[in-house]
Amino acid sequence: MALKIYLAGPEVFLPEARAVIAEKKLLCTRYGFEPMAPGDLVKRDGLDPFTHGMKISAANEGLMIASDAVIANLTPFRGVSADVGTVYELGFMCALGRAVWAFSNEPRDYFERVRDDYYQGELVTRADGRMAGPDGLSVENHGMGDNLMLDGGILARGGAFVRRDVPRERLYTDLGGFEECLKLAAAALL
Amino acid sequence: MALKIYLAGPEVFLPEARAVIAEKKLLCTRYGFEPMAPGDLVKRDGLDPFTHGMKISAANEGLMIASDAVIANLTPFRGVSADVGTVYELGFMCALGRAVWAFSNEPRDYFERVRDDYYQGELVTRADGRMAGPDGLSVENHGMGDNLMLDGGILARGGAFVRRDVPRERLYTDLGGFEECLKLAAAALL
Repeated sequence: MALKIYLAGPEVFLPEARAVIAEKKLLCTRYGFEPMAPGDLVKRDGLDPFTHGMKISAANEGLMIASDAVIANLTPFRGVSADVGTVYELGFMCALGRAVWAFSNEPRDYFERVRDDYYQGELVTRADGRMAGPDGLSVENHGMGDNLMLDGGILARGGAFVRRDVPRERLYTDLGGFEECLKLAAAALL
Repeated sequence: MALKIYLAGPEVFLPEARAVIAEKKLLCTRYGFEPMAPGDLVKRDGLDPFTHGMKISAANEGLMIASDAVIANLTPFRGVSADVGTVYELGFMCALGRAVWAFSNEPRDYFERVRDDYYQGELVTRADGRMAGPDGLSVENHGMGDNLMLDGGILARGGAFVRRDVPRERLYTDLGGFEECLKLAAAALL
């Protein structure tokens, strides 16, 4: 029986969600894994929005528990960091001791994104010696792709956080990084 | 022996981090719990930034595993959603089956924040019937405080996601919501 990989990522929010997720599933199968895609099993069925949300959450947690690994798309989403739904799932799978890989279609370090995109280059040195935004909030600079808990959790489990530069219009649809993770997963697990 | 509560949140980034975390610890103790604060045990010790980051990550994961519960500060951080480090920790603790509570000093639903703060009110209805930003990305509207995986994970475990309105200048320092979580934790666990 094929090992199962949970496909975490913000693709569900795309207009072309179905096509991109179908492509991810196909790639997953090609590398010898069974894809587990979030939201797959959840019908609206006249439920109110809150109850529907709870049902999706429970279904996704069930899919994660049933999976052997996760590949998380940590491309920044509506801001300088990854989609928080995806990050919740990454933490969840790390705690379960599953194999984890991640990719981002944004090559820069978290520090650079926060400095350039969020604070428009306006960093200051705080009284305690830390780099911070004009709002006083320190900006961590560990040479990592996102908050250290994300990079740290992935790397501590032998995973990798693949970062690639892609044309802006393919920010959420380019699957080169995803495929790279599949190759790493195949080398590690098969 | 007192039950241990892990104090997840972006307070570590504040100029007044030490004072706020000290106050959280004191409150925690007052309610009969032992506080477990991230980063507490990690010295820089001349380590390069990356290795230092990995050490903090490992230390925080160790503190979480040693804790019985988590109270997560999900106040939006540098954008419309919670700090991703905190979200990783929330997912981690949910997967471990620990008791979870969360608070936010932002009372609005995720949908309202994305619509008003991120898209400046410019939502459109997509061809598939979903509400979306002008960039085409759908905006989930489940009457929840953040992405459904966060609210769903908390509520499914009998926790609560407390949301409060606080003066803007106390966005990251007001601990009323934290104390409310402590009361809920005491009622549930002690």
